[in-house]
Parts: sequence; structure tokens; C-alpha cells
Amino acid sequence: MTATDGRLHARIIELAALNADPAAGGITREVYTPTYARAVELVSGWMREAGLAVRLDAVGNLFGRWDGTDAGAPIVLTGSHIDTTLNAGAYDGVVGVLGAIEAVHVLREAGVVPARGIDVVAWAGEEPRFGFGCVGSRMAAGDLSRDDLDRLQDRDGVSMADALRAAGLDPDRLGEARLDPATVHALVELHIEQGIVLERHGQPIGVVTAIAAPHDFRLTLTGAATHAGATPMGLRRDALAGAAEVLVELERIARASPSGTTVGTVGVIRARPGAINVVPGEVELDVDVRDSDAAARTAVVDGIVAAAEAIAQRRHLALEVTPIVQDEPVACAPEVVAAAQQACAELGLDARPMISGAYHDAMIIGRRMPVGMIFVPSRGGVSHHPDEYTAPEELDRGVAVLAGTLRRLAG
Amino acid sequence: MTATDGRLHARIIELAALNADPAAGGITREVYTPTYARAVELVSGWMREAGLAVRLDAVGNLFGRWDGTDAGAPIVLTGSHIDTTLNAGAYDGVVGVLGAIEAVHVLREAGVVPARGIDVVAWAGEEPRFGFGCVGSRMAAGDLSRDDLDRLQDRDGVSMADALRAAGLDPDRLGEARLDPATVHALVELHIEQGIVLERHGQPIGVVTAIAAPHDFRLTLTGAATHAGATPMGLRRDALAGAAEVLVELERIARASPSGTTVGTVGVIRARPGAINVVPGEVELDVDVRDSDAAARTAVVDGIVAAAEAIAQRRHLALEVTPIVQDEPVACAPEVVAAAQQACAELGLDARPMISGAYHDAMIIGRRMPVGMIFVPSRGGVSHHPDEYTAPEELDRGVAVLAGTLRRLAG
Repeated sequence: MTATDGRLHARIIELAALNADPAAGGITREVYTPTYARAVELVSGWMREAGLAVRLDAVGNLFGRWDGTDAGAPIVLTGSHIDTTLNAGAYDGVVGVLGAIEAVHVLREAGVVPARGIDVVAWAGEEPRFGFGCVGSRMAAGDLSRDDLDRLQDRDGVSMADALRAAGLDPDRLGEARLDPATVHALVELHIEQGIVLERHGQPIGVVTAIAAPHDFRLTLTGAATHAGATPMGLRRDALAGAAEVLVELERIARASPSGTTVGTVGVIRARPGAINVVPGEVELDVDVRDSDAAARTAVVDGIVAAAEAIAQRRHLALEVTPIVQDEPVACAPEVVAAAQQACAELGLDARPMISGAYHDAMIIGRRMPVGMIFVPSRGGVSHHPDEYTAPEELDRGVAVLAGTLRRLAG
Repeated sequence: MTATDGRLHARIIELAALNADPAAGGITREVYTPTYARAVELVSGWMREAGLAVRLDAVGNLFGRWDGTDAGAPIVLTGSHIDTTLNAGAYDGVVGVLGAIEAVHVLREAGVVPARGIDVVAWAGEEPRFGFGCVGSRMAAGDLSRDDLDRLQDRDGVSMADALRAAGLDPDRLGEARLDPATVHALVELHIEQGIVLERHGQPIGVVTAIAAPHDFRLTLTGAATHAGATPMGLRRDALAGAAEVLVELERIARASPSGTTVGTVGVIRARPGAINVVPGEVELDVDVRDSDAAARTAVVDGIVAAAEAIAQRRHLALEVTPIVQDEPVACAPEVVAAAQQACAELGLDARPMISGAYHDAMIIGRRMPVGMIFVPSRGGVSHHPDEYTAPEELDRGVAVLAGTLRRLAG
């Protein structure tokens, strides 16, 4: 079995043209937007062309079914997502959906007739439009309630429920999107690494053994918004000066984590009122801490909060800690890991067992069903950025490994 | 001479109702907006009621003239501004304009007939809508060119020239707004302190001897926007982690300034792309450094830039330093300071000689004409914030001192 000579790469480029903000340089295609709807339409066509029966569930998860010969057997799921973060690259998520369609082509051309059905899936909303990610797979897993859909809002204050309605979907039919674990044999997700480990080691494929999970929270520091010229240094309660100390401590604590795999990041900072001549009176830091080692992650989170409390107290700032999301790391299913390793061996590929530092829909599904992941290299480790890139031949190797893995899992 | 029993405070509250964003809790009334135009109209009415001849110059500076008996003599200017920063208080600037109108009432009621004309002025745009402040007085002083009006933009990308046109003014008539220094005997500006020095010392009035000036610049740190989960701590080029170190150093360097009066502030921080799962690839810090001691200020600015360069180099970040504005501190004119001190003495007030840490239109005018300032206390030193407050009796004391000062200056 070989992959289909660059067609995957060509389709990735074609899908990338569906972009709500081309002027930014990268791709912006957030879930439940008109641009996202056009992407669903395009991918649905490619699913049908691969002989898949297309259906959209109540909350926008897109499935393409290849029926197996054993109609009653639990099926094999494979896929990822086709939404993007802001000003992003073309590969994150997309590779796992379009790559799964290519894998179906590869299997069909090789004359494979699967016993289990194979469902290619594009989960709705892996990127954190509503404050955290994987909302489509979380809804399929039953992790979000109807109330959550009213509560969760995007940066413009649009609730998930309203976003679903605007996309022609129905938040009140959330229950229908629930995926029964008894109907799923396993899930395997092909994805770009989004790091530089494969590139550094010159290896073409990663077989993921565990998925690190984020513990996200917001630190809000409140001081006094006073005049930048008329407030002597010794009389300030500068929330940004305090936040800067928290940021320095956060980096130090994450680096010192005993697991060696913890990462800590502040990707969002807001200083208010935000005028050059006013000492910031309030600063929000959105903190993301991840590890596949849950205990190490907890120790780092606790260390950051303790440091923030000490800094706030010393500087006479108020500190508020607001939970955002706390997901458990997931170990991949030995059966899926073995199938992927065998597929690599069959193709003569030097597969690297590795931890996924990024989290994925597979992590959400993996709490309830057996999952695994296959990584292809990311040039320079760049992701969530217009420069994200994986070469056509690397993508085709990923498809070949996915096809071999699906063949084993589908029987 | 006494002030007019709380009318000034009542008018400050009335003017505060002209607010483009009441939902924010404070007052937002930026120059050249429809809300600002309504404020100009209201204040013009109060000027006329005080017997002043109202005129608006080509760029929106509002004048109310009380003619003197000596028609050819250089006049006395007094005033401040009626625009606000975002979500601001009711007193900053407004006290100096409405207080000057009250001072005219006080002088008229006392039967004063000035030899020199007195012009009450509301400078257009003291707050930094277009990146820096005092644009109205800068245009009157001849410090801005026609090209500057096209170049300077507000946060929505609106040029000053377009903002002037939208307000029914004409940027091409900029030259007509030029104030000839030979026609001005002196300027005196009544203002809230915006600090806590008077409050701490229990003194009712400050007579300003020098005005500190800002040196503002932007530091842009550029690293790599990589995935927050998949990029190990040791492989990051995190622009926000670098910026945090710069902020810590900035505070340390400003505190250590030999003058003891330098202040250093970052009021605006922007981290891009601004997603919780992406390491920030670019951070902008808008830095404001002020002092009445120009040499100390320069040493602090140089120290901050050197520290930023060292941090950027160590972290493999690019650093760009972009000038915003650099104004020279101004010493007040001995004649104006003496007039204000005599007015205080006459009223039995314990006046405090002090430096203005905030800058003002008087600083711009003060480079070309003799100027002075009178401060009234700010409760808690709060300014540029909805909690800004000065009590009615403190305002009336300020008006009384201003009236006494004007009487001396106008002869």
C-alpha cells in the first residue's frame, strides 16, 4: 500500500483557501462560522468521492462511513478537525481528516474489505474558540451539558448555543450527538507533531504512547489604575509589574518540574485600562500547564499559584484564580499502539514512540474508548502559525501508516 | 474674592454626563468625537454666560475672551482640556477649563477690570487618542506639521486629519491655529494633582515650579509563535517571557534613578497571536518614562533599552525600539509662580511648591511662553479612572487662587 502521490498535499492547500482573514497572512477558520461551513461542504464532497456515506451530527461533527462486512461489530474511528485557531497554518487537524480519506482510498485500491466499519470524522471545534478546545469531541463524549453551551462564550461574547444556531445546528439536540463507547472499537488520529522532536532525531513517524493534557486557569491581579506621571514608584500598586514577576516565576517553576516534560505558558495577557499614561490597575494572565505526568503537572500549577499569591501579597494586589479547564492525561491503548508500530515496521519506517505534548480530540475520546495517534514531522516545530509545514512525502508516509493501522484495527 | 459655592462642582458633574461609553463606569470623551462636540457646545454656553467672546480655532481649540482695557497688550491665557482618556474620571482637565470660567465670575463680581485681555482656553486633545497627548496645544505652539496630521493615527487607524474633518474642522488650515508668543504674556493652568503628595501632606494647594515630561517609546520583542503543548521549555523563543524580564528590570531601574523623581511605566502590552495554546511570538511594550530632571530621565531610558537588548540577546529574541514621543521638561516662569504664591498667601493658604509628575498643555506652551500651574488635591491620587475625585471646597479654593493669580498677571 502506498499513498496517493501528493493529492493529500494539494487538497490541504485547496482547503486552506477557505479563510476568514486572508489579510493576516495565515488561516482563520473558526468552528460554526460561514467559512467553516464551506470547509465542511468541501470535505463532505471528498468523503463522498471516496465512497463514504456522509452525515453531520446534531452539533456539527462530520462523519464519513465505510461500512464493514460485520454490520454489528464496533467500528473504527479515524480523523481529527478542520477548524483552525486565529492566523494559523494549513496542516493542524486537516492532515488527520484528509489523510483519513486518503487512507480509505489506499485501502480500497489495495482491495481491502474491512470487517469493521470505518468512520472518518472531522470533530467540530478542536481549537479554543470558546475558551478551551475539543468542544466537538467533548460533546460526542458527553462531557458538555446543555447549560455549558449557554455559558461558554467566544471572545466576542457569542455563546456556543448561539454559534450552533447560527450554523443551522440545534443545541437542544446535544444528546443526539452522544457517541456510545460500546459502538467504537478504537480511534486512531493522524496529526502533525507540532514540535521538533521528530525533526531533531531525523525520524519520519511518531507513534504516540500518551497524550499530555492541559490544566488551564486565569490569574487576575488587581491593583490601582493611577496616573503614570503623578504616581511615584514607591506608591504604586501596578498590576502589570506584579504580573511580570508571576511570569518570571512561572517559567522558572515549569523548567524545574521533576518530570522534565511539563510546559507552562501564558499565551494571553490583558492589561487594563491599557493607556500609555495609566499604571495598569488590572491584569489577566491565561495560564496553560501541560504534562503527561499528572502529578508533576499538579505540582507546577500549585507552585505557580503559590508564587502568584506571595507576589500579590507583597505588592498589595488582589489575586483571583479562575479555573478554565483541567483535562486528565491519557495513555494510548496498547492495541492501537501495536497496530501502528506494526504498520511502520511493514513499511520499513523507523517509528519513534513519543508523548504528545499538544492535546487532541483523541485525548477526550481516550477517556472512554481505546485510542492512539500517529505523528508526522512539523518543519521547525512551528504550529498555530502561517509557517506550519509538513512536506508532501512526509504526509504520504503518514497516510500509509494510518492505512496499515486501520487495516489491522478493522480486521 | 471667594469662589462660587459649589457651582463648579455641579458643572463638572453636568459635563461628565457627556460620555461615549457610560456602561464602562467611567467617562470616555475623546477629542474630535460627536460626544466631544457636545462638550464644546456646553462649555461655550458657560463661557458666553460669563461674558466671554467664544471662538473655535481651525483645529478645535476653544477660546473665550475677556477683553482688557489695554487692547494692544499681550494677553493672559488660562485653561486646560475637556477631552478624557478611556473610562476616565470627571476632573482631569475639566477643572482647569470650568475653573477658569468660575475665576472670571469671581473677578467680575469683585469688580476687577483687567488691563490685559484674559483668554479662557480648552485645548483640543490633551489625552493621547493619537498615540501621544497635547495635540491641541502642540498645534497652537507650531509643533505639529500638516504631514503629522496624516501620519498620526488613533487605535482604530483613523488619522488626525480625518478625525479633524469628521469634526467639521479643516486640517489644511493648521497654520491659522498657530499662536504668536508675542501676543501672550503668560499662561496659568489650574489642574488636579493626579498624585497623593498634597493629600499626604495635608496641604490644599500646590504651586508648580517645574513640569516633568515623558519620553515614550515602544519595545517590540519577536520570538517564535509555537505550540504551547508541543514546544519543550528549553526550545522556546517566548516573547512574553522575555517581556516579563524587561518589565522587572524597568521597574528596578526606574526605582534606582538618582533623581529620586523618575517614574517608569508600561501601560500598554500586546502579546500576539494571543491564544492560550500558542507561545507568544511577538510582544509590544509601550514604555513611558518621566522626570523633571532630563539627565536622570535619559539615564533611565538608556538603562531600560540596554537591559532589553541584553535580555533579547540571551533569549534569541529580536528587539525593535520605536520612538513615540520625547518632550523636554519645563521650568515654570518665576513671575507666574510668584503671582500664584502671592494669591495663596492673600487667602491664607499653605501652598506647597512641587513638581508636576504628569505633563500638561502648559508644558507644551511653556517651551515658548511663560507658564505656571496650580494644583488642587486628588483623593487617593487616583486619576484617569472613574474614582477620580476632588471635593467641592477644594475646587473652590483652587478657583480663588487662580482668580488671584490672574488678577496679578492681567494687571
